[in-house]
Amino acid sequence: MTAGEPAPQRDWLGPERLLAFSDGVVAIGLTLLVLPLAELVPDAEEPHGSGLEIITENLAPIGSFALSFAVIARFWAAHHRVFDDAPRVSPLLVWVNTVWLFTIVVMPFPTEMVGTFPDDAFTLRFYVGTLFASSALLTVMTFLVQRSRAPADRGLKHGSGGTGAVLLLIFLVTLVAPQLGYWPLLLLFLSGPAEALLAPRVERLLRRARN
Amino acid sequence: MTAGEPAPQRDWLGPERLLAFSDGVVAIGLTLLVLPLAELVPDAEEPHGSGLEIITENLAPIGSFALSFAVIARFWAAHHRVFDDAPRVSPLLVWVNTVWLFTIVVMPFPTEMVGTFPDDAFTLRFYVGTLFASSALLTVMTFLVQRSRAPADRGLKHGSGGTGAVLLLIFLVTLVAPQLGYWPLLLLFLSGPAEALLAPRVERLLRRARN
Amino acid sequence: MTAGEPAPQRDWLGPERLLAFSDGVVAIGLTLLVLPLAELVPDAEEPHGSGLEIITENLAPIGSFALSFAVIARFWAAHHRVFDDAPRVSPLLVWVNTVWLFTIVVMPFPTEMVGTFPDDAFTLRFYVGTLFASSALLTVMTFLVQRSRAPADRGLKHGSGGTGAVLLLIFLVTLVAPQLGYWPLLLLFLSGPAEALLAPRVERLLRRARN
Amino acid sequence: MTAGEPAPQRDWLGPERLLAFSDGVVAIGLTLLVLPLAELVPDAEEPHGSGLEIITENLAPIGSFALSFAVIARFWAAHHRVFDDAPRVSPLLVWVNTVWLFTIVVMPFPTEMVGTFPDDAFTLRFYVGTLFASSALLTVMTFLVQRSRAPADRGLKHGSGGTGAVLLLIFLVTLVAPQLGYWPLLLLFLSGPAEALLAPRVERLLRRARN
Repeated sequence: MTAGEPAPQRDWLGPERLLAFSDGVVAIGLTLLVLPLAELVPDAEEPHGSGLEIITENLAPIGSFALSFAVIARFWAAHHRVFDDAPRVSPLLVWVNTVWLFTIVVMPFPTEMVGTFPDDAFTLRFYVGTLFASSALLTVMTFLVQRSRAPADRGLKHGSGGTGAVLLLIFLVTLVAPQLGYWPLLLLFLSGPAEALLAPRVERLLRRARN
Repeated sequence: MTAGEPAPQRDWLGPERLLAFSDGVVAIGLTLLVLPLAELVPDAEEPHGSGLEIITENLAPIGSFALSFAVIARFWAAHHRVFDDAPRVSPLLVWVNTVWLFTIVVMPFPTEMVGTFPDDAFTLRFYVGTLFASSALLTVMTFLVQRSRAPADRGLKHGSGGTGAVLLLIFLVTLVAPQLGYWPLLLLFLSGPAEALLAPRVERLLRRARN
Repeated sequence: MTAGEPAPQRDWLGPERLLAFSDGVVAIGLTLLVLPLAELVPDAEEPHGSGLEIITENLAPIGSFALSFAVIARFWAAHHRVFDDAPRVSPLLVWVNTVWLFTIVVMPFPTEMVGTFPDDAFTLRFYVGTLFASSALLTVMTFLVQRSRAPADRGLKHGSGGTGAVLLLIFLVTLVAPQLGYWPLLLLFLSGPAEALLAPRVERLLRRARN
Repeated sequence: MTAGEPAPQRDWLGPERLLAFSDGVVAIGLTLLVLPLAELVPDAEEPHGSGLEIITENLAPIGSFALSFAVIARFWAAHHRVFDDAPRVSPLLVWVNTVWLFTIVVMPFPTEMVGTFPDDAFTLRFYVGTLFASSALLTVMTFLVQRSRAPADRGLKHGSGGTGAVLLLIFLVTLVAPQLGYWPLLLLFLSGPAEALLAPRVERLLRRARN
């Protein structure tokens, strides 16, 4: 805390608590997704149907639970990767992270809407739009963290830009062709392997171009 | 643990576990806010209405969820700032922090009341009063942490005093003019930028005055 | 990991993850207590009553929520104190800690029973019995941690023995005089100051007696 | 980050955040198990029955809650043991850990089904099958962590292989003899002491054989 520039140092926080807090919020958001499933089971006092029927008659809520779990887990891993050995975080980054956490915390709401209205076009767009917003905010955070690094370390991390682009594409598909339903989201799980395949080559090219 | 003063050292705890525990409680409180929203969605077995209607017919609960999320996230950031590189914490601080956590944990209750009774004066005052209590306790904690620092480090941190003053003002407004509803709470989100603008100047003045 | 004694070292774990996990469970248990309160609020679609009525007509659930919050927060602080700078933890201690976590996780169940049946003698005993079991397990953990310290460090920590004794007393009172209701639990909050007053003197006596 | 092998180092993450995140998810999954119990208690506004009746009439949900708590706590301890002083974790391990977390998060769903349909063969197999899947994934993770160690450190840790084998056995029993109900799960709690008894001898043999 030199006298010359006390303001920036004071406002930039160490990332540990921010990350621990974010991890906590994501872990809870992920786990709360199961609560609507638990509510599908009738009360012990007045059981009706059977265990198997509860599953076969509720494939839409169970599927939306599994899909949201997979997507949030994937976003968490991307968040982990973005902040891995990040330096101190700026107030702007804290703010963007808070909005990102909002998109995660709100997820049980669109997830349950998908379970109840599996064929509704608005619900589809609302669900995919939330995922796209979350992914776009991760991309913004990737950019902000990159910018706060020393120039020499930049470009060595590939963040969530690929996922963001895929989700933008899926979101546009839901706008023009909602009849395809949730199938375009499978692209999301193909983007990982594709990125893993392409990223090292892109980087090698970039590094050569720089040298 | 010298023989001369064993008592204070034994009762003062390292802040790590206190902060991790507080972060956990706040993260869960923040995330549980979504549960009433998830309950707005009808069961998958007997769907009625549509995805869009669930949103347009429940603007009050959705708005109170978003407002409470924003306020708790803001309080968490203030808590983070208050305790950043704090020395060991006294039993009194642990106690005040526990009461503060109570004001956070209880938030889903007034939040849901706001969603159900958006025009009720008592509910408005109860909600804003809870926020004010939470903010006042943060100010008390700022003061207690400041006092435990070495004198040279004091005054370099601006804590949540500004937010506390704004919430006291808003609380007074709800007492005399409840018909204004929740709009005065917008001041809360203006106080951040205002403080960021003013604080460095105030501090520069203070530092000059001290030298 | 010398060849001579690999078994004990391999089974004794570092306390960090155990404590972080316990803190997480307690933080969630504490926060879930509010959910029954949030359910007291009628749905936004069919509001009846007023904000004030929800509070005045539900004093028993609100009171049991506040009481359980205060007790769990107190137990957490005691747990913090027991494990503060503890060495590696034995499998037995992990096991006792798991049973202790069970008594914390189960708390929303007796808490809600108290809110529904405030005058029921069985409910009173079940609630106080759960608290006593939790406190007794804390005392066992205090003892186990003490034993794992070097002899020179023993006796310098006063754990939760006082709270355990007070809860045993209160539990016995509920068995013979359930008509006193929940009032004897107030003793719990007096035991803290009493212990703070007495402990240093007892210790000074002990230290003198040892020298 | 030498120029020679940047790819593996970049994709392998430090285990701290993965473990903290997993601990958070398990802690929440464990704690959410109590929510169906809390819902057994009638509303404070319309109490019926008594505190004792709520317990005696709901032994199946209470038993399934206690059983799931014990099993998840045991799995967490096994997870702790698998990752204790693990080196950096590979993307594959992150992926397997995510699927494992899914088996934990989903637990409240089969647990509540057991509480409602205690005599249903499908429910029994679904519940035990979930436990077996979770345990098998732990065994896979044990293997993956072992492989990432230096050869000299391998074989010194006994992981969750024993539990996995016991659960496979119990799962097979539920397939051929569902009328035995949940009793075979007791084997799970006997496998711990058996392993503790046998493991040091097996290891001593292994170490002798190696020297």
